[in-house]
Amino acid sequence: MRSSHVPDIVVGRLPLYLRALNHMQAEGNEITSSQELGERLGISSAQIRKDLSQFGEFGKQGTGYNIGYLSDQLRSILKVDRVWDVVLVGVGDLGRALANYAGFLDRGFRIYSIFDSDPKKIGKRAGDFTIQDAAELRKAIQADDIQVAMLAVPSDQAQAAADALVEAGIRAILCYAPTSITTPASVRVEYIDPVLHLQHMTYHVV
Amino acid sequence: MRSSHVPDIVVGRLPLYLRALNHMQAEGNEITSSQELGERLGISSAQIRKDLSQFGEFGKQGTGYNIGYLSDQLRSILKVDRVWDVVLVGVGDLGRALANYAGFLDRGFRIYSIFDSDPKKIGKRAGDFTIQDAAELRKAIQADDIQVAMLAVPSDQAQAAADALVEAGIRAILCYAPTSITTPASVRVEYIDPVLHLQHMTYHVV
Repeated sequence: MRSSHVPDIVVGRLPLYLRALNHMQAEGNEITSSQELGERLGISSAQIRKDLSQFGEFGKQGTGYNIGYLSDQLRSILKVDRVWDVVLVGVGDLGRALANYAGFLDRGFRIYSIFDSDPKKIGKRAGDFTIQDAAELRKAIQADDIQVAMLAVPSDQAQAAADALVEAGIRAILCYAPTSITTPASVRVEYIDPVLHLQHMTYHVV
Repeated sequence: MRSSHVPDIVVGRLPLYLRALNHMQAEGNEITSSQELGERLGISSAQIRKDLSQFGEFGKQGTGYNIGYLSDQLRSILKVDRVWDVVLVGVGDLGRALANYAGFLDRGFRIYSIFDSDPKKIGKRAGDFTIQDAAELRKAIQADDIQVAMLAVPSDQAQAAADALVEAGIRAILCYAPTSITTPASVRVEYIDPVLHLQHMTYHVV
């Protein structure tokens, strides 16, 4: 496995490939090609073949990829052939939408518990969850050995919440607050900020 | 301006720079450096200097960048020195969160109107908006010459909704549905799918 040397930008495309393969499978297909994948994703077939070749041999020239097999391999590479428990911190509108989102489980993730620091919210329900006191975050994360968190608090609370998550042992944070947070190098952070995408697109709109 | 030849991945980093500069300005700073920006963003200072140099000369060796000036320049390059009206299609939990999100306006965007096809929702309120009938989408978009849309409908409705948006003249779509949509090359699409980010991170979690 040469995966330790794979550029992170290549790793970042694997979830896109996996998602497209899942859709193909749901449509009843068994075989695909780098051309077909590329057309779905707007990525060149050469790029797809090159990306996948960094992780092994998944198809043969001329016969294409077996969708089920390639999906399984990608799930294994991305470590989502298991289900990761996730804590959600911050139950505003967005946190509530995430708590109700049905698309996590069949792709490797399950929201396990949700937290907020607002006394008016603690104890109330959101989706299938009871909102817990953010002061209990550390204890809960450590008791259940949770490694992944989603952060949906306001920007001015994001760094403090991230610090608490890191201290509790969280290894990966998906941050919805429109700010940058600082963590030790051993903790991965990714951001979801719709405005970054909107601004990227308006650059191109004449 | 050499910007027509700038790789898209570079363009995609400009909104990150702009966001960091805005935070620095809010903290009362007037001058920054590629080193300081890089530390905030986890990007090398050389990369930042190289990215910015594709668009012009924004600072001098040794004196750093004037934050206000560089912000203005980036806003102009990204075309967010104006406010873009945005239509939102799909008012589930997520659409509701977007309708209530306060972080668009000061970064170049304003939700102008919101649509859903569910008769039970049409006419109801979400945030400051009255939910309109998605059947009226085309008329509304053309009447107000809107070019940007956010799509927060279920996956199985995403392509049809995107087709309607494209037909109405939309030029940029931010898609929250966990699927890939197809549009003419002249229409930009970006996706927000939390699972892609989560899977990218779990690859790295040992």
